Amino acid sequence: MQERDNWVHDVEMAEPSFGDNTADSDRLRRALAPGADAPPLYMDLELIRNLPDLFRDNGYRVSCCLFRDSQGWVVTGVAPPGSDASWLGLAVDLGTTRYVLALIELGSGRELARVSRDNPQAELGTDILTRIHYVGDSRQRLQSMQELVLEDMRAAAGELCREAGAELENIVNVALAGNTAMTHFFLGLPPKWIIREPYIPALNEPDLVPASRLGLPFGSQARVLCFPGVGSYFGGDLLAGILSSGMHDSEEISILVDVGTNAEVVLGSRDWLIACAGAAGPALEEGMSEIGKQAGSGIIDKVWYDESAGDFRARTLDGEPPVGICGSGIIDLAAELFRCGLLDFRGKFLPDVMPERFKSVDGIIHFVLIHGAESGSGEDLVLGQPEVDSLIRSKAAMYTILETITSSVGLELGDISRFHVAGTFGSYIDPDSAVRIGMLPDLPRERFIPLGNSSLAGAARVLQSPEAIAEVHAVSKKVTYLELNVNQEFMNRFSAAKFLPHTDRSRFPSQDG
Amino acid sequence: MQERDNWVHDVEMAEPSFGDNTADSDRLRRALAPGADAPPLYMDLELIRNLPDLFRDNGYRVSCCLFRDSQGWVVTGVAPPGSDASWLGLAVDLGTTRYVLALIELGSGRELARVSRDNPQAELGTDILTRIHYVGDSRQRLQSMQELVLEDMRAAAGELCREAGAELENIVNVALAGNTAMTHFFLGLPPKWIIREPYIPALNEPDLVPASRLGLPFGSQARVLCFPGVGSYFGGDLLAGILSSGMHDSEEISILVDVGTNAEVVLGSRDWLIACAGAAGPALEEGMSEIGKQAGSGIIDKVWYDESAGDFRARTLDGEPPVGICGSGIIDLAAELFRCGLLDFRGKFLPDVMPERFKSVDGIIHFVLIHGAESGSGEDLVLGQPEVDSLIRSKAAMYTILETITSSVGLELGDISRFHVAGTFGSYIDPDSAVRIGMLPDLPRERFIPLGNSSLAGAARVLQSPEAIAEVHAVSKKVTYLELNVNQEFMNRFSAAKFLPHTDRSRFPSQDG
Repeated sequence: MQERDNWVHDVEMAEPSFGDNTADSDRLRRALAPGADAPPLYMDLELIRNLPDLFRDNGYRVSCCLFRDSQGWVVTGVAPPGSDASWLGLAVDLGTTRYVLALIELGSGRELARVSRDNPQAELGTDILTRIHYVGDSRQRLQSMQELVLEDMRAAAGELCREAGAELENIVNVALAGNTAMTHFFLGLPPKWIIREPYIPALNEPDLVPASRLGLPFGSQARVLCFPGVGSYFGGDLLAGILSSGMHDSEEISILVDVGTNAEVVLGSRDWLIACAGAAGPALEEGMSEIGKQAGSGIIDKVWYDESAGDFRARTLDGEPPVGICGSGIIDLAAELFRCGLLDFRGKFLPDVMPERFKSVDGIIHFVLIHGAESGSGEDLVLGQPEVDSLIRSKAAMYTILETITSSVGLELGDISRFHVAGTFGSYIDPDSAVRIGMLPDLPRERFIPLGNSSLAGAARVLQSPEAIAEVHAVSKKVTYLELNVNQEFMNRFSAAKFLPHTDRSRFPSQDG
Repeated sequence: MQERDNWVHDVEMAEPSFGDNTADSDRLRRALAPGADAPPLYMDLELIRNLPDLFRDNGYRVSCCLFRDSQGWVVTGVAPPGSDASWLGLAVDLGTTRYVLALIELGSGRELARVSRDNPQAELGTDILTRIHYVGDSRQRLQSMQELVLEDMRAAAGELCREAGAELENIVNVALAGNTAMTHFFLGLPPKWIIREPYIPALNEPDLVPASRLGLPFGSQARVLCFPGVGSYFGGDLLAGILSSGMHDSEEISILVDVGTNAEVVLGSRDWLIACAGAAGPALEEGMSEIGKQAGSGIIDKVWYDESAGDFRARTLDGEPPVGICGSGIIDLAAELFRCGLLDFRGKFLPDVMPERFKSVDGIIHFVLIHGAESGSGEDLVLGQPEVDSLIRSKAAMYTILETITSSVGLELGDISRFHVAGTFGSYIDPDSAVRIGMLPDLPRERFIPLGNSSLAGAARVLQSPEAIAEVHAVSKKVTYLELNVNQEFMNRFSAAKFLPHTDRSRFPSQDG
């Protein structure tokens, strides 16, 4: 296949003659994949059926759309010449809680529209574990789980096309990045063994799947590429993140961190990649505390202590009265409480310093961030000691994972040149705060790079650049998955990291002075 | 893929562990196609869905069936270990008039049962041309044409399985050899341009097609391999014939002749292959004369002049009173008429030699082979002068085609070491008779080799020997198709061949003396 910068090929074939009576479909194949060592190129019968008339009506000139997986190429559409602008791609970030679709013009690589929706599977289980247990061994429940997201996606794609003034049938290439369980549900594959030792998925390297097999009403030859996973705890979403970060292509040592219930971490460069995942605890997830929430309206994303006013200040994402706080806000809050001496180095409240900000609820001490009079709900927004303890464990786990993976390859945290933080968390987090509480290492701040929705960006990338597919498969082969051994050494590190910022203050020089 | 002598693979995989957490489907793929340069191997989602439980129930030991086309491999079935005997293949010779199915045990290569049926498409047109004109540009008529044969084939396959005590769903690999038009109808591809200059098929090299796409009720992952064609007038049936003759693998110069309305001829050796097809006229087809019929009950296949009795004798295939004569019988008859001096060297009747055997119908002279009193119908079985003229043109066309293709590569007819004659015609024809009338060249008789149903044999061969697939595709690439130019030289040769046996008697030395 000739290397091209997009998936759309304008093809001009020699018209057949007595001296060249190659069949129509073989003629197209030859034009697309010349040479004896041409890679496999698949054309469906339904597509071949239309070629003879299409070729003769257009003087053997057509516009084709291709797609590929690790094994070969597929022709996903053929149309009269000059149809370049009508070929569309759909990038999908299929998250456990939310999913995002982006409509991409394949000829130009331009994003036309984007929509974000709740994953409706949440009605059968809010988290992965619950959903897998719900499905159990039932083929029928698996199908319900699959159909929930497919049905919603049909509606969402329709909405997206209306917004962009496009037709669903013009969607021919779909790239989807999801974690291993979401990818299994999407494809209707049994997820049971993902969560049972030794954690074996049914499939890690999916071939292209016809969209019609999934009941997706796109082009008749549309194909879905699901990003490959590396293991049960390292899915296509993280692979898409690597692709979007560019760390697999850099000479420098980079790290990529994706924080959720699990912290997923990839360390490496163009020469090697090592990954691990570990329970970071729920501290940074919605629901971690009474006031912990996802980013949204009335949600506090930033907290600081105003020296001149002598009091705490909070900012909500949209300026509405506060009703909750997201992960980045909690990290800010903990960092400021520590800086102002309201938390000691063990993470225990010191209420005597500012007693008007504390109250006791059921004998447990709480810091009052927002008084009821100023909150959106009329209730105090509070942070209790148990929630701080939970945050401390989470940040210690994160730091320990970072330290463990780095030392496993003989490096130190300071060797990391680029520190990518993925997701909403990465977009909102203030590195100063995260470093202050010892969650992230004390690196020069410019090394911290928020990635935004890196799964979606990675999915979009393969729709924009055919050569990215080869990168995806090369990366999936290159990543070594490090099984985090929770042994004595890990526990020692964890214990040392359960202080603010750390028992070894010399690791956090920026905080002295 | 490891080279094996059949399509069935017993696979024993290492059980997964923390140190080897390859996904189930990737584990199977790795076992079947080890190595970094492994060829593409496709597994359907439906098949992957069943792997996790199947593997765990059987200690990671399974029996697999594979199939392949020119582009890659497909897993057509996976079952518990020890299922070798249950994997079945179906070989199909899809002829214009008749089709034949053979059920093959894939593990042993043994043929279990065979059935031959009329091609029901005949109700929409007895010959290819009529069927293609009937379909025209109508998608709906094309579908009817396709469905006619598919529906009949479903019933025939069911019958075959009942006979062999097998289940339809155990059929996983299907190999079909048909001419280009029959293959297009079978796959639902528009045949229109096959018969219009410059004679371009929609498809010459089909990939494996899921049997389910054709509504064939076989194994859920069953695949159909249609033999590739070389052009509109050189279909998969002839390619299967080459495969079955072995001429593509021989150092000697061989020729393969398949006689129907068109004479299809292939000449060559392991180093080169050249093919051509030409109109041989209807003389050897059923309906060529009042008495011309397909081989069957009451059909004369052999005619000779009994010197002692001083009269003609005829044998029917099954000893029943004669009702017609097939191609080989007509050739015998013409040869004997010529030998006895009842035909002159121009092919004109000389009735005075044996007046009691001739009668005039509407002023046209006819030879009476069987008198009404002895025939199955009560009517005289007669051969008229116009039908002899037609036979002379046919045999002259055949000889001219043989001479033309041979001389096109600088050879003479005498250089042919093996002369394969395909089909029913090849099985019944008496080479002495064919040489006597100058239809076939005067070679030592042992060089003539009847092939029988070589299309079916070729189709069966790829079910019995995986390596035959590579041969098929190598042969399809190797064959050079010679467009028969009906120019002055061809016409000169044709004119010289319109005598019995030929104007140049020195070419037929066996007939002197």
